[in-house]
Amino acid sequence: MNLKQLSQMLGLSQTTVSRALNGYPEVNHETRERVLRAVRETGYRPNKAAQRLATGKAGSIGLVMPTAPGHSFDVHFGEFLAGLGEEALRHDFHFVLMPAEPDDEVAALRRLAISGNVDALFIAYLRGNDPRLEMLRSLSIPFVVHGRSLGAETDYPYLDIDNEGAFYNATKLLLLLGHKRFALMNGPAQYDFAIRRKNGVIAALSEHGLTLEESCISHTLMTDEEGTLAMERFLQLADRPTAILCSSTVLSLGAIRAVNQAGLKLGEDISLIAHDDVLPLLKPENFSVPLTTTRSSLRLAGARIAERLIGSLNNLGPYPEQELWKTELIVRASTGVAPAD
Amino acid sequence: MNLKQLSQMLGLSQTTVSRALNGYPEVNHETRERVLRAVRETGYRPNKAAQRLATGKAGSIGLVMPTAPGHSFDVHFGEFLAGLGEEALRHDFHFVLMPAEPDDEVAALRRLAISGNVDALFIAYLRGNDPRLEMLRSLSIPFVVHGRSLGAETDYPYLDIDNEGAFYNATKLLLLLGHKRFALMNGPAQYDFAIRRKNGVIAALSEHGLTLEESCISHTLMTDEEGTLAMERFLQLADRPTAILCSSTVLSLGAIRAVNQAGLKLGEDISLIAHDDVLPLLKPENFSVPLTTTRSSLRLAGARIAERLIGSLNNLGPYPEQELWKTELIVRASTGVAPAD
Repeated sequence: MNLKQLSQMLGLSQTTVSRALNGYPEVNHETRERVLRAVRETGYRPNKAAQRLATGKAGSIGLVMPTAPGHSFDVHFGEFLAGLGEEALRHDFHFVLMPAEPDDEVAALRRLAISGNVDALFIAYLRGNDPRLEMLRSLSIPFVVHGRSLGAETDYPYLDIDNEGAFYNATKLLLLLGHKRFALMNGPAQYDFAIRRKNGVIAALSEHGLTLEESCISHTLMTDEEGTLAMERFLQLADRPTAILCSSTVLSLGAIRAVNQAGLKLGEDISLIAHDDVLPLLKPENFSVPLTTTRSSLRLAGARIAERLIGSLNNLGPYPEQELWKTELIVRASTGVAPAD
Repeated sequence: MNLKQLSQMLGLSQTTVSRALNGYPEVNHETRERVLRAVRETGYRPNKAAQRLATGKAGSIGLVMPTAPGHSFDVHFGEFLAGLGEEALRHDFHFVLMPAEPDDEVAALRRLAISGNVDALFIAYLRGNDPRLEMLRSLSIPFVVHGRSLGAETDYPYLDIDNEGAFYNATKLLLLLGHKRFALMNGPAQYDFAIRRKNGVIAALSEHGLTLEESCISHTLMTDEEGTLAMERFLQLADRPTAILCSSTVLSLGAIRAVNQAGLKLGEDISLIAHDDVLPLLKPENFSVPLTTTRSSLRLAGARIAERLIGSLNNLGPYPEQELWKTELIVRASTGVAPAD
C-alpha cells in the first residue's frame, strides 16, 4: 500500500491525504479522521523521510541525558525514556540525546537547540529558579518540562507530580502511627522535587509541633550506596529516628541493607516510606519486607510528555499546558507503630 | 578564550588550529598534539556548531533503542548507553535514538541512516545471520557492532565478549563441583549471544558425556519475572537440575526468589552462576547469598565503542577492527558442591 493506492481507495487526492497525514489545518476534521482510520486498517506506513522533506519537520525530540564520568546510569532517567520511547514509536519520532554533566545542562540544551535537528525540547531535573526556563521561552521551539521550578515564573508547560502532597501524606501516616523522630533521605538539594518533598515533610511535622533536624536530612544522588551511607549515619545518632521518608526505592534498597546489618527490624524498629517511580527492577512488593510507598509511574509521565509534544507538533490536542499528578499512598509492611522509647 | 586568541597564543594561523581541531590529515602529529594540549590547558571550547558547518559533520551517533509497549526499559541497554554517553560527552557528540520494536530493527536502522542526521551508526542485539550487517555494509556510514552474528560474513567491525568461553568456563566449574544436572536460563533464542552461551554450556557438558535437555533450557526476555517463572518450571522437573547457568543478574534476581520460596538453599541445594554486565543496581556481591558470576562491564563496552566511532570520525586511531573481550569468572557463595542424590 503506497500513498497513491491509499488515495485511490479513499477517493481523495494524494495532496489531501498527505496533508491530512502531516497535520495541515486546511484538512477538515472529518477527512483527517477518515484518512487516519484507513491508515490503521490498511497498515499503510507513510514514507516519513519524504514527509519530512515536504514539511521541514525532523520528527524528533531533543533531550539532555544526565551523564557523569564514574556515575551510574540513572535508572529513573531510563524508565522515563522508556515511556517517551513507547509513545514516540507510535508516531515515528526519534530522539536527539545530548549527554551533559549535571551542572552543564544549560549549555547542553543550547547546543541541542542550535543543532537544528530537533522539533521540540524536553527538560527535566529542574532546580529552583532554573535558568533553562528563560532560555527555552526565548527560543521558538515547543517544549514541555518534567517537573517545576520554585522561584521561576510559572507560565511554562509542564507535567509534574505533587511532590509536596506525597511527602506530606506519607509523614502524616507515620505521625498517626505514633512516630516522633523523623529523617528524610532526599535527592540532591538543588532539585525542585527535593525541595518540595522536604517542604511536605516539614509542613506535616509542624502541624504536630515537630521539626526536622538538619542532622536527620541527607541530600545525595539516588543510588543504593548513598542510601546505605545515609542510613548508617542516621542509625548512629544519639536520638535515632524511627521514621524514614525516602525519595527513591533505589535509596531505600541501600538503606534497608544498613537497617538489616544493624540487626534492626524494618516495620518494627524502623518504619520507612519510599517514593516509588515504578522502576521494573525494584518492585516494592518484592522487597523481603514489602515497602510502603508513594507511587507515580515515571514511565507514564514520559509517555504523556511525548504525547503532548508530538501531538502539538501534529496539530492535535489541545492539551492542558500544566498537569499536576497526585501520587498514591500504598501501605505495606515497612511501616508500623512507633517502638516504645 | 576564542579561536583567534588561542591561535595567537600558539603562534599558529587560525586555519591551522581549526584544521588540527577538526582532525584534518594535513596537520602534522606534533602540531595537533600542541593544539590539543593548549585546548586542555586553557579550557577553550571550540564552537562546535561552526565547526560542523565547516566540516559537514553532525557530531552524532545513531542507534536503535529497543522499545516495546508494556515491556520494561532494558537496564542492560541503559548501562551500555551510559558508557556511550560518558565518552561522547568528552567529544561533544550526541546521539540520535530511534525507538523500535525488537522485530523492526532493520526498518528503524534504515530510517536512521536516511535521516542524514548521523555520522556513524551503532547496532547491538545481533541475531544469527543478521540482515542489518549487509545493509550497513551497503551504506557509506561508519559503524561498529556490539556483538557478532553467527552465520554472517565475518568482515565487519565489532566489539564482543567471549560468550561461549564465559559459559564454557562457568559450566566447567560446576562440573568440577560434581554437578550433573544442568539448566540454562538464557536470553531470547534468536540472539547471537544466547546461541554462543548455549554452545559454551553444551561444549563443556559434552566433554563429560553429559547433555543439556530441552526441558532444562529457557529462552526469555531478561527480566526478573521471567527468571522466577523459568526457575519455578525447572524446580518442578522430576529430575531437578542442581546447577543453573543464567544469562543475566536480572534473571537471577527472579530465579533466586523462586529458590527461596521453594524452601531451597542457594549454594547448597541449587548452585547458580549468572552473567554479570556490572549493572549498578544489581551488584552480585550484595545479593543475600553473593553470586558467582562471569563478569564483563557493559558500560566499558559502550565507552569503547564510542571511542572507536568518534575517534575514527576524527581521524584518530587506528583502532582494531575486531575486539573480543574475555570475561572474568568470579567465585562467590552461590556455587557449592553438588548435593548427594
